[in-house]
Amino acid sequence: MASAYVHGYDEAARIRLQDQARSLVDLLHSDTVYPAGSKVLEAGCGTGAQTVTLARNSPGARITSIDVSAVHLEEAGARAAGLGNVEFRQADLFALPFGKESFDHVFVCFVLEHLPRPREALEVLKGQLRPGGSITVIEGDHGSACFHPDSEAAREAIACQVELQRRAGGNANIGREVYPLLVGAGFRRVSVSPRMVYADSSRPELVDGFTRKTFTAMIEGVRADALAAGIAKSDRFDNGIKALYRTAETDGVFCYTFFKGVGEK
Amino acid sequence: MASAYVHGYDEAARIRLQDQARSLVDLLHSDTVYPAGSKVLEAGCGTGAQTVTLARNSPGARITSIDVSAVHLEEAGARAAGLGNVEFRQADLFALPFGKESFDHVFVCFVLEHLPRPREALEVLKGQLRPGGSITVIEGDHGSACFHPDSEAAREAIACQVELQRRAGGNANIGREVYPLLVGAGFRRVSVSPRMVYADSSRPELVDGFTRKTFTAMIEGVRADALAAGIAKSDRFDNGIKALYRTAETDGVFCYTFFKGVGEK
Repeated sequence: MASAYVHGYDEAARIRLQDQARSLVDLLHSDTVYPAGSKVLEAGCGTGAQTVTLARNSPGARITSIDVSAVHLEEAGARAAGLGNVEFRQADLFALPFGKESFDHVFVCFVLEHLPRPREALEVLKGQLRPGGSITVIEGDHGSACFHPDSEAAREAIACQVELQRRAGGNANIGREVYPLLVGAGFRRVSVSPRMVYADSSRPELVDGFTRKTFTAMIEGVRADALAAGIAKSDRFDNGIKALYRTAETDGVFCYTFFKGVGEK
Repeated sequence: MASAYVHGYDEAARIRLQDQARSLVDLLHSDTVYPAGSKVLEAGCGTGAQTVTLARNSPGARITSIDVSAVHLEEAGARAAGLGNVEFRQADLFALPFGKESFDHVFVCFVLEHLPRPREALEVLKGQLRPGGSITVIEGDHGSACFHPDSEAAREAIACQVELQRRAGGNANIGREVYPLLVGAGFRRVSVSPRMVYADSSRPELVDGFTRKTFTAMIEGVRADALAAGIAKSDRFDNGIKALYRTAETDGVFCYTFFKGVGEK
């Protein structure tokens, strides 16, 4: 959890994450509803983009949301103001302040992608779950990005983000590994379902909210780091970004897949 | 329609297409049901792998299935024996023997990927439709393949199939273009939905039926052509195939997306 957070902490990243949560919210969250009275641990809540949805969809559940970053938590707290069923705690996932088997359910969204040891993180979280409790994991996968018109430069720009995340100890292509990671950590009855965002011009909100303002903005956001790391040339990178925005035009198509897995202890 | 059919005409390919149709049948076909009495044109029926499902799901519809290949049609006829609502005709898509606006619905599955001029083909098919009639298009997209463990050699082997299909005048990555193709051909109210095949070891029939016997077998099937064309070295290609079979093991994952589009005249 202490590794560099490749998405950055700036304002643009914050708004992007919020837009992302809004346009993807049904696709990713609608089938996660926890019973009243159940205790839920959200591990790695960041700025609370998912926390708000989680809390609203399970109004009777008691949600404890942790993050290692005090800056993130402050923003998460402001965002979740008025929601009575969430408590925020600053904590490292590998040094949790709770007793063993303290929770009925664990929720992990866009977190494993940043961890050098994702399976070990899941093992730790399994320790927090009561027997019979559930874990839910949602992760994206940059290798699933597929678009029209296709562009080598765009794929190279995406590869810059993947490489930077790798160097920071993470894995931007981790979505496809959710199944083996959950099984490897010892969860039973593991089931993974892919959730593809498919955006063409018949779905203008998704084109704007996802293709432009989430995915392409995220790739564009690593420009300075990619140039500084010497893994991209500015002209080529800019052409890649232009090509990604091109997929948001009338005849363009953009696809990206998130993987949602559930398992039982 | 006269261009070389890159999948080949041999027995292994025939069985593969059959396996494919069987394991994918619900995913691709379950939402295509035509009313009793409606006239349906299936353009490019091949060996009838989709025709059987089409005819069974719409028992009251009158289906005319065309293909340019007499060899294909003979097999399709045998396969559809006993189905009273299908008529087979040998015809070229660009020289159809029917009157204008003869059909209520048109169905096109795994055909555009082989055509040098897919948009023009759709325009021709639009001419066969009565005003208000519908078209349904289903195509795969090799660029959507995404698997664990990832493998550069596997991706190169897949790229061989894509390149051979390109040289034969087709496009193995055409799925993502179904939306702009239908819009470009003048269809209205176009809607495309992606259908991802997601295979991990919790779904052993899919791992066997799709990962092994459909996708990997198809890539393996172009080995000789890829070597003859000088676009692959035998060791490297074989490593790629091995890596694809590796994704069918207990901790492996394989994803592939088909795109299904519907439009109205």
